[in-house]
Amino acid sequence: MSLVIIGTIAYDAIETPFGKTDKIVGGAATFAGLAAAYLYDQVKLVGVVGDDFGDENLNVLKSRGISLDGVQVKKGEKTFFWSGRYHNDMNSRDTLATELNVLADFDPIVPDSYQDCQYLLLGNLTPQVQLTTLSRLRHKPKLVVLDTMNFWMDTAWDDLMQVLSSVDVLTINDAEARQLSGEYGLVKAAEKILQLGPKYLIIKKGEHGALLFGDGRIFSAPALPLTDVYDPTGAGDTFAGGFIGYLAKVGTLTFHNMKNAVIFGSALASFCVEKFGTERLKELDSALISERLSRFTELTKFDIED
Amino acid sequence: MSLVIIGTIAYDAIETPFGKTDKIVGGAATFAGLAAAYLYDQVKLVGVVGDDFGDENLNVLKSRGISLDGVQVKKGEKTFFWSGRYHNDMNSRDTLATELNVLADFDPIVPDSYQDCQYLLLGNLTPQVQLTTLSRLRHKPKLVVLDTMNFWMDTAWDDLMQVLSSVDVLTINDAEARQLSGEYGLVKAAEKILQLGPKYLIIKKGEHGALLFGDGRIFSAPALPLTDVYDPTGAGDTFAGGFIGYLAKVGTLTFHNMKNAVIFGSALASFCVEKFGTERLKELDSALISERLSRFTELTKFDIED
Repeated sequence: MSLVIIGTIAYDAIETPFGKTDKIVGGAATFAGLAAAYLYDQVKLVGVVGDDFGDENLNVLKSRGISLDGVQVKKGEKTFFWSGRYHNDMNSRDTLATELNVLADFDPIVPDSYQDCQYLLLGNLTPQVQLTTLSRLRHKPKLVVLDTMNFWMDTAWDDLMQVLSSVDVLTINDAEARQLSGEYGLVKAAEKILQLGPKYLIIKKGEHGALLFGDGRIFSAPALPLTDVYDPTGAGDTFAGGFIGYLAKVGTLTFHNMKNAVIFGSALASFCVEKFGTERLKELDSALISERLSRFTELTKFDIED
Repeated sequence: MSLVIIGTIAYDAIETPFGKTDKIVGGAATFAGLAAAYLYDQVKLVGVVGDDFGDENLNVLKSRGISLDGVQVKKGEKTFFWSGRYHNDMNSRDTLATELNVLADFDPIVPDSYQDCQYLLLGNLTPQVQLTTLSRLRHKPKLVVLDTMNFWMDTAWDDLMQVLSSVDVLTINDAEARQLSGEYGLVKAAEKILQLGPKYLIIKKGEHGALLFGDGRIFSAPALPLTDVYDPTGAGDTFAGGFIGYLAKVGTLTFHNMKNAVIFGSALASFCVEKFGTERLKELDSALISERLSRFTELTKFDIED
């Protein structure tokens, strides 16, 4: 049994009010894989990099027990590069550069060693590549989680609808939920989106937490109020990795476990934003994660004897 | 022992995407009083209306056991009138008209029958009138809660600072917390605001819930995800009334009780927005409120055995 994660593996250059980075390691699969690997020990990535992507960077992932058998290294090509600048509110950003490079003609490889996949995270990437990955698994996984973004709603609607119809859980942000459904109110938006295929929908609201919809129920998770958010890049990917990593660990797909998975995802995402890129995410351990989970409990727990 | 609430008693005319009203009853003291009276039986209002404010409207309050000994009815004058139009997002609005009328020279009366006040809500109104009310209580109440708004930050800063230094709890929205503190991040904003006097700060985030800061701790309460929000007018006042009404009922000012008070305030506010004006708030009972509180528990409860 394993958890397979497909997504970008990238170089990012980031500017926030707190500083500016040169090319640092990023990408949806990187963040999600690092997060998931804290919770589950059979994490396997599908992705592609150029030969400019240093072995030391791949070794960071390998050293956490993450399989890279499905990660292609393209000789003479360059790794996907994204550069962005966050505004003062840290909720909005401008893309300064997007160089697809190896992603332009990415044909995902799903090795035989990945065919034991029970949990699949289709991380943010073109829906066509997400569909291809799904089709190359010989057995339908127990759980498929899809993360996507507004860009694919603008440019690949039909493919997105197709992949949506094949997944169990969708994670998107509130603006994307409104765009996807054409509804402003999130309850109505969720009702419409759940008719497109997924059984569960998670709406990520950044500093306002996340909402889980499904089984006719709603769960509201807070975000941890943080003194400083250094870099929101990868928080959504980290959330998705933590979410599916927890479910892979516990193995039972009840609403109770889905709620806990949202809290684990939120806890890992709360670390992600504390430093640039994957820096903070690389230095965690189970004690730090447990302590952070306790803060989520303390933050939300109340007890009314009416 | 009693709970005294000062605030506007008003006529409102409201437009939302769901419809439009003629003059209907509104005002901070009205919403807060109606909410508090579901939780505590010694609620007393301080306010002023003109003789155009029908007896039937005052009787609605009286019939709930709310004392109006401190509500002046000015002969030949008109009640405060506010008119506003909400945008499609229901989070922003334009003020179409503000007619101060009786509020222009409002000198609050605090009758002898109110001098047993232990819980005081300084509802949204000019800080000068809030200060006068406080000074006319012969004994300092056990708990003073202040609700205010950006308008007073723009026009009455010094008075606002003075009243802030005399209260225990401040309730404002997130934009107001940013304006009051000059800090974008809400954790830093809260730290600064707690240095201005209040021991506790509640930041109301509308559809994103509320944050309670104090005792070096943070509590995050969700808002109930609603299919339709008909009219947000008075939701903040209702929240404040439910908050202080619960604390008056339980009588002990622990952080545990403050958290529950935030949930009670949020539950009552979730009713308020379901119909125009005070319509929904007038038709509740303890069974409906209990059921709504259960929904808040279901919405937030998780249980991680790590």
